[in-house]
Order: sequence, then C-alpha cells, then structure tokens
Amino acid sequence: MLSNINVKSMPISLKEDIDMENFMIGTYFAKFPANIPVAKLAPAMAVEQSTGTWIPVPGETEEVRQKHVAKVVALYEVPDYEYIVPSDVKIRNYIIQIAYPIVNFGSQIAMMMSTVVGNISLAGQIKLIDLYLPKKYVEGFKGPKFGIAGIRKLLGVPKRPILNNMIKPCTGYTPEVGVQLFKEAALGGVDIVKDDELIANASFNTVEQRVKLYMEAEKEIYEEKGERTLYTVNITDDIPKVFENAKRAIELGCNAIMVNFVATGLPVLKALAEDPNINVPILAHMDVAGALHMSPEYGMSSHIMLGKLARLAGADIVVHPAPYGKATVLPEKFSRIAMNLSFPMYHIKPTFPMPSGGITPANVPQVIKDLGPNIVIGSGGGIHAHPQGATAGAKAFRQAIDATMSGVSLEEAAKEHKELAASLTAWKDPFSIVGKK
Amino acid sequence: MLSNINVKSMPISLKEDIDMENFMIGTYFAKFPANIPVAKLAPAMAVEQSTGTWIPVPGETEEVRQKHVAKVVALYEVPDYEYIVPSDVKIRNYIIQIAYPIVNFGSQIAMMMSTVVGNISLAGQIKLIDLYLPKKYVEGFKGPKFGIAGIRKLLGVPKRPILNNMIKPCTGYTPEVGVQLFKEAALGGVDIVKDDELIANASFNTVEQRVKLYMEAEKEIYEEKGERTLYTVNITDDIPKVFENAKRAIELGCNAIMVNFVATGLPVLKALAEDPNINVPILAHMDVAGALHMSPEYGMSSHIMLGKLARLAGADIVVHPAPYGKATVLPEKFSRIAMNLSFPMYHIKPTFPMPSGGITPANVPQVIKDLGPNIVIGSGGGIHAHPQGATAGAKAFRQAIDATMSGVSLEEAAKEHKELAASLTAWKDPFSIVGKK
Repeated sequence: MLSNINVKSMPISLKEDIDMENFMIGTYFAKFPANIPVAKLAPAMAVEQSTGTWIPVPGETEEVRQKHVAKVVALYEVPDYEYIVPSDVKIRNYIIQIAYPIVNFGSQIAMMMSTVVGNISLAGQIKLIDLYLPKKYVEGFKGPKFGIAGIRKLLGVPKRPILNNMIKPCTGYTPEVGVQLFKEAALGGVDIVKDDELIANASFNTVEQRVKLYMEAEKEIYEEKGERTLYTVNITDDIPKVFENAKRAIELGCNAIMVNFVATGLPVLKALAEDPNINVPILAHMDVAGALHMSPEYGMSSHIMLGKLARLAGADIVVHPAPYGKATVLPEKFSRIAMNLSFPMYHIKPTFPMPSGGITPANVPQVIKDLGPNIVIGSGGGIHAHPQGATAGAKAFRQAIDATMSGVSLEEAAKEHKELAASLTAWKDPFSIVGKK
Repeated sequence: MLSNINVKSMPISLKEDIDMENFMIGTYFAKFPANIPVAKLAPAMAVEQSTGTWIPVPGETEEVRQKHVAKVVALYEVPDYEYIVPSDVKIRNYIIQIAYPIVNFGSQIAMMMSTVVGNISLAGQIKLIDLYLPKKYVEGFKGPKFGIAGIRKLLGVPKRPILNNMIKPCTGYTPEVGVQLFKEAALGGVDIVKDDELIANASFNTVEQRVKLYMEAEKEIYEEKGERTLYTVNITDDIPKVFENAKRAIELGCNAIMVNFVATGLPVLKALAEDPNINVPILAHMDVAGALHMSPEYGMSSHIMLGKLARLAGADIVVHPAPYGKATVLPEKFSRIAMNLSFPMYHIKPTFPMPSGGITPANVPQVIKDLGPNIVIGSGGGIHAHPQGATAGAKAFRQAIDATMSGVSLEEAAKEHKELAASLTAWKDPFSIVGKK
C-alpha cells in the first residue's frame, strides 16, 4: 500500500515565526557551483518571486515587505558539510523551501504558478519537488465534482478497481469503426471507455459523431450486461471550442468527458469542473506532463501536476504512467502521484488514480498491491489486441481483478477462465524492445 | 544581427516521399543506452504518437496507417558512427525527426501539443528542439493583431527600439503607489509600462483600480511629453476571470493587456488574441517557461514556446530572458527566440521580442547589436532604482537608445546627459552575486 513519507507535503523544517495559514510553501531541489554563496542567493530568489528585483527600489518599503515578501524557511545542503568541502566537489546540492504569502495571488492557479514556478524556473538547475497548500488557499477551490465515491456510485461498483479501456488505434479511424471497438470492450466488462489522447474533435471523427453512436451503443449494452459504461469523450481543443465540445457532448447525452489538461493548461480543467452545466465526471490525461517533470534537475515533480494540482483543479480521474509496462516512471514516483490524488486534503474529494501504459492482466495483482483497490486500471492494447478479441480482453481483466480481490492467484483463476489464460500466455515480456521487464 | 541558421526550422533532412504540405515536423534530441536498437525504437515512437500502441491492434488497418501514421523522416547519430562504437560509450545521442499528419489534430494548439510533445515527453531523455509548421496548419491561425508594425503605429515610433518598464516592486503595493511609479517612468520617456508578472487582479490592488488610475495619468502625461504610453495591465487569472479581467480593463479604457501565457496555457492567449472585442496589443510574459525549456535533455527548446508558438497564438510582444543581466540564457538561444518571433511565417505578423532581466542602459548598444532595432527593451530595476529616480532612469534609457541609433557611444553621450552618466556610474557589474558579468 501507499508509503507514508511526506503524505501532506508538509515543509521538512520551518522557521518558528512562519504563520502556516497564510503561506504556500514550495520545496526546491537546486544545484549550484561550489563557490556560490547560496545562503545569500536563496533569500534573493525568494525576494525576486515576491516584492523585489535584483536591486532595492524605493517602492519596496518595510510595510510592503512585511505583508508580501516571500521567505526562505529552510535551506539544507545535501550532504550536510560542516567544515571542509572536498576540493573535487564542483557542484553542491541543496533543498530550499520558500514560503509565499497567499495574499499575493489568491485562490487561483495561474498566478500561483507564476509565483512558485514562474521566473524561478529560469534561475538555473532548480526543480520544484513539493508544494504545501494551506487551507485558506484551498478553500477557494471546489475540486472534483464526483471523485472516487461519486464515480463508484454512478457505476454501482463499491469496492473493486474500475476497468478503463482506451480505444486503439489512437486515431485515424471512423466513428463507425470506433463504435465497434467501444461495443466489444464494453460488452466484456469495461466500466469506462475513453478516447485515446490523440483523438478529439477531428475532421474525420468528431465529438458529436462519436457521442451519438457510442451512447446509443451504451444503452444497448446496458440491457445486455446489466452494468453502465461511462464514455469519456476527448473534448480537448483550444478556447472556446473546448467548452463548446464539452457542452455539445453533454447535450447529446454523453455521461463523462476527457481533457488533455497539461496541453490545454490547468485553467481549462478547472473551468470545466466548476461549470454547473458540466455535470459528468472529468478524466484528465497526462500527456505533455513529461516535458515538465522528466528532468531530475529542472521543472516540477510529477506528483505536483499529475497529483495535487490536477485534483485541486477538479479532475475526477487522472491518467498517470505505470511502472509495469511501456511507461518510464520509478515505482516510488508512481505511488507518490496516486497518493497525492487521494490523501486527505481539506474539503477536496479524492480523485481516482488511473495507472496506464502497457498494462496487461498479468499486472493486475501488482497494481492492486501497490496502490490498493481505489484505482481505475487503464488498458488499451491489453484489451484490443487480446488474441480472442477485445471482449475477451476486457473479460480477462475483470477475471484478473475479481481473482485478486478474492485472494486467488492469476494462475489459479486462469484454469477456469480461458480469456485470462489466453492473455497470460500472450504477454509475458512485451517490452523487451526498450530493455525493460 | 540575427544568424541565419535554421531560420525557418526546416527539417534538416527528409525522405523524398514526404508531402510537406500535410505534415508538421518535430525535431527531437534523444539519448539512449548504447544497446538500444534506435532504428527500431524511433519508428515505434512515431507510431505511438499517431495510430498505434505497443502492440498491433485489429483497428490499425492499412488505410488508417496510410492517412494517419506519423513517420520518422530523419534519424542521425551524433557523432556519426559507421562501424565500431567505442566500448566506453554507454549512452548514444540522436537527432530524430518525426512527421505528423496535420489532419490528426487540425489547426489548433492543444491537440498539436498532445501530438508532438504529449506522451513522447515521457519516453526517456528526449527534448523537442524544433518544430516545422506547414502552411496549411498555420492558415487556421490569425496570429498577432498588431505585431511590430501595429505597435509602432499606435505609438508613433517608426524605427528606434521601444522602451518598456515593468513596475517594481513586483507586488504588494497599492494602486496609489503604483500610479506614482507609472507617472515617473512614463514621464521619463517609457513607451510601454507593464505590470510585473507577479501582480494581476490582487485583492489589495485590482485590475480595475490600476487601469482607472493609470489611464487617467496616461492622459495627463501625454499632454506633457507629447508621446502616448501603453499600459499592459496583467489580467492573468483562471478561466473565466482572465477574460473578464481583460474585458473590464478594455471597457475602462486600458490600451494594452498582459498575460502570463505559460501559466494560463497557450489556449488562453490565443482566445484573447482572437476575441474581436480585445482590440489592444497583448504582451505575453515568459514565466513558467523555464520548467519546459531549461533542461538540455527534456522538455522543449525555448524558441518553440517563447518564439514560434507564442507568436502563432497571437502575442504582439513576448518577454524573454536576456543574456546581459540576471537571466540565465545562452546568447545563441536568446537570438533564436527573437528570430522565431520575427522571421517570415506565412501571413502571421512579426511579434516584438522583448529582452528582459536586469537590463541597464549600459546594455543598450549590445542588445541592439544582437537583435537589431525591432525590439522592446524591458527594464524594471534599471529604471526604478536609478539614483536620481525613475524619471531619470527612463531618460537614461532613451538617451542610450538615441545615442546608439545615431552611432554615438554611451561614454560620449553621457558627457551631455547626466541621467545616462549617473546610470553608467551606478551599474557596472550588478550581478556579481551570481558569479556573472
């Protein structure tokens, strides 16, 4: 299950005089040449991200500083040299924590990002590795409308992991082809069918066309399987079209939506979630996030954008990379994202983590062991490329989920379920091309 | 002046059968362990960013591939090994170019980003280092409403660099304090006064309050100096407030706006630029961009977001880091951004580059030598911390600009201009704290 480290992203140390209620705390990893006086530079960076610039200006009075200046609240060197720094150490590593007065930006995301990432992201080798959000800041947000409990209620699935299928191929197919893939997957027991992030309102396959066909199919399939299927249609687009796509989809009866929220920007996700007319769950897709988090020395850690901020902005489900298949993520970073989506966060509902990227039924016991059952399991090729077809692919996943929830091994369950057996035979080490297990 | 390399970001090589009109070409720098078969992996990555997934699926037919698959059009190893790779080479470097069919995403930014950055940004050590935009894609965009020529016309300044001042302190002051700073700077000859990126519609200093006071002051100052001053009020906010802030500012007579476009996302900038009611220039601020571009091995190069895409989305002026002062940017990257803002790009107007970050009058000859006169020179502290006050600070800049445009050295000009002389005496090496010149 989830580890407990840093669960609420509390600052690792504080000056005693900091009023926690009124400050957001950014934690940074930074590297500087060995001769830089970081004890002077770090406060200068804090000042630059609030009241000041590189030189004192007349308007930066004591009163202005009192209320609005950002402060370094912790500065640690790693390792913790006390006297002699070895002469071969050319670069020294630091953890810096800066407290920002929330009055400077208020309860909004865009100006907060300009403050805690903003120009500081241009200051050299520096990465935002955590963000503490005080209650007063979070109070201005609504978060997810549905969250884990709301989606479980919609689907009538109280405990087990939810099964999601992304339609594959990613793009280039017609709505008529898509609805066949939708039907096959849904019939096999998929709870949520999503578009791939690479198809949205395309000229050859529009949101409107897909929603009409898929939602009609959803009704038929409900008659047959007795379970509802959510369809998260990808409404990603520029403004205002992204909002028009969402509204049109809902008018046509779509029961969920999906947005590539890093590509559109967090404010688009937040506006969708805050719109009272958008009364369906929102699935937020991770693509583009790697450009922000993959460097160990620049940008911001994955759990900030894909965890805390996506949830704060109102995502009901967040797709994030899983360490079992084709995605490139450390297991501890994977868990950290899921943790930030679901740990207690004032009044904000927990969001469903949706691990994704080359997952097959063989990975189901491990993903449940790693994150617990409050997850959406995402599979594309693992369903559509099943040797017996997509319906069998979905069945194999449901069989794997049910077995794991009942404490039965997959090998044991496969003896009674031919779909699961076929899946386990097909996929043992599908990612050998990239040198991974 | 600007270098000519890679001016239009044309692909460095092409398969002869690629139809350039219908493809966008992303150029990536990537590092892989020496034993990875990159000749196989690169096409797999291209397929993943279009029709396919890690395994063939039934829906990915020949017809789908024909129209929609992305293709590797160039793959180079750097250096170009032909036979033996030395045994101590553990990591090999590549330039990979992938052509994406524009039909997959259409003329929009969000889905284009999901395609060319998207999940590929999660694929390891890979950085998007250039982006070729075909005419058919760009045709769907309007670009800047004003651009360089439009702003020069508004200001009545045909040739010389435009002088911009960002009000300092960055935040924490009242509108009443702000208008004094505005007046002092504008009176000295600043053409455009901008808010700092750290203040927008703050509780202690709203957009409405600032616009009312500053625009009243602008009229008074026009009587006195005979030159117009643009005020770019920072409207950055979440959606829909960012649009409400813009509309309210314009209703109140504001003659320009500013947005932290990386913090809000490019779609917000584009929607502002496309709104016919927003009939004033838009200044786009760079903050947060460092999180995308600062790593040499991940994310995307600075000239893509701060150059090409900001311009495509409609920025009239883009603030970007200058290599003369506190900002951390290579001179060649600095020039590349400016180049991408202003080189010929179909019907899209050129955008003003606005170098910024610790610039003082002493840097004026160099910045004009590096970028030419079609620039906005940004200065905050260099004006507000002038020993004789902000009006003198602005005069010193105008004196430096006029001298440089007339071929007169600053030392010579300072003999006749006490403001310039005082500035040159005050600031010789203000950035020694960070070990820079």
